[in-house]
Amino acid sequence: MVQKIDTTKIVVDPFNTDFQQRWTWTMLGKTLLNAAENHAKARGFGMMDLNGRHYTWVLSRLAIEMNDMPRVYDEIGVSTWVESIYRLFTNRNFSVVGTDGTVYGYARSIWAMIDYETRQPAQLEQMEGEVFQQFLIPEEPCPIEPQGRVRPLHDEDFVKAHHAKYSDIDMNGHVNSIKYIEHIMDLFPFEAYQDGRNLHRLEIAYMAESYYGDLLSFFRRKLDDNAYEVEVRKGFIPGGDRGTPVVRALLRF
Amino acid sequence: MVQKIDTTKIVVDPFNTDFQQRWTWTMLGKTLLNAAENHAKARGFGMMDLNGRHYTWVLSRLAIEMNDMPRVYDEIGVSTWVESIYRLFTNRNFSVVGTDGTVYGYARSIWAMIDYETRQPAQLEQMEGEVFQQFLIPEEPCPIEPQGRVRPLHDEDFVKAHHAKYSDIDMNGHVNSIKYIEHIMDLFPFEAYQDGRNLHRLEIAYMAESYYGDLLSFFRRKLDDNAYEVEVRKGFIPGGDRGTPVVRALLRF
Repeated sequence: MVQKIDTTKIVVDPFNTDFQQRWTWTMLGKTLLNAAENHAKARGFGMMDLNGRHYTWVLSRLAIEMNDMPRVYDEIGVSTWVESIYRLFTNRNFSVVGTDGTVYGYARSIWAMIDYETRQPAQLEQMEGEVFQQFLIPEEPCPIEPQGRVRPLHDEDFVKAHHAKYSDIDMNGHVNSIKYIEHIMDLFPFEAYQDGRNLHRLEIAYMAESYYGDLLSFFRRKLDDNAYEVEVRKGFIPGGDRGTPVVRALLRF
Repeated sequence: MVQKIDTTKIVVDPFNTDFQQRWTWTMLGKTLLNAAENHAKARGFGMMDLNGRHYTWVLSRLAIEMNDMPRVYDEIGVSTWVESIYRLFTNRNFSVVGTDGTVYGYARSIWAMIDYETRQPAQLEQMEGEVFQQFLIPEEPCPIEPQGRVRPLHDEDFVKAHHAKYSDIDMNGHVNSIKYIEHIMDLFPFEAYQDGRNLHRLEIAYMAESYYGDLLSFFRRKLDDNAYEVEVRKGFIPGGDRGTPVVRALLRF
């Protein structure tokens, strides 16, 4: 039988936690992306495999919902599998479960495969369809809501700007998908993470890529006491150019 | 026989690399600190063990010298051991070696144990001396130079300021030792890391702790084409308060 789900075993290391000794969202996010890539690689469609054929995976959307975060020294398993493939996109899901059975949370992600020379998306159902189909497991539960739509934010919602630095850039040469999350979480005061409070659900849509030196402007709008919309644009000039949306996100604390 | 050296096996995951597909210094640094803490914990003197007795480990100095960085999917072992203990400090060393035998580099670190209520350092040779002594292994080679002294920098060497954010803070409630390294590396342009160039040796002295919201000012002075001194101060006001030195570092590219 074909193995469809891979599980990465992890012990939460002390310096991968926040000031409340909870696993950081940065480490969680990186672990999800690494699990995705390792799962794909083991099945012949990792980024390295695609590179030779001028294709690469592009993360389009990510929704993570955590009931709780593992604490320092907790032993967890991060599982990933492919739920479905349709024309231009594939749905990959994740679970984070303690070895003691504690269900910490789930994640949903949507990926496209693009030809990095023509920038055209690949027709996933046709191209290598047989390879993908055998690993689909639509019946595996991922009991969190799919991602909704985040609206554009107004110029007046501007909070801060940041020039993309060396540490922001990953192996693809773009600002790393998870680094955006780190910068977005840093828009909120310490109190948002104190006394048992933490980010509960994050939805993020990746709309364009940004590069070293790009001026990233962060916009934030409060929806209610526990929910915020965020937009990141590149090339925004206050009172001038609106810039290009790079990321839109919804955060529920 | 007492086991004195612990080795953490790691496969360099794709999203833990930089744009040249090299393991990041941030992940390297975190791995060293985690290895140190896990090694101490396994022997009864980890931070958690000390917490009950009002003590904690404080990293005083760190010198890392890398001949090369592991690349994506390389399999490596990160080893750590305690070289020596003297009155108020202990020397802990590290090696990073590929499973194929490639010696990537070494690190030296100096730690103090402090009473976090009185802020007084513990007399390590007396306190629990017997526990520590049995794990010392001074004969294990760590063929890199010990750390030198970094001089104070001038106000005119000021480069940028940064308010410490949520993601900067670790389980101790301070700005994380490795996050300083990330911020310091971000002071240098992309070209410093391109075309095979990379940081070769880093020396860093931790002089004071900083906290959420602290204004951290970064100073940089060029020594020669490949070497720079860096200082981080908190509370610096241009033309006013000199501030307090938090970190001093020497970087050789």
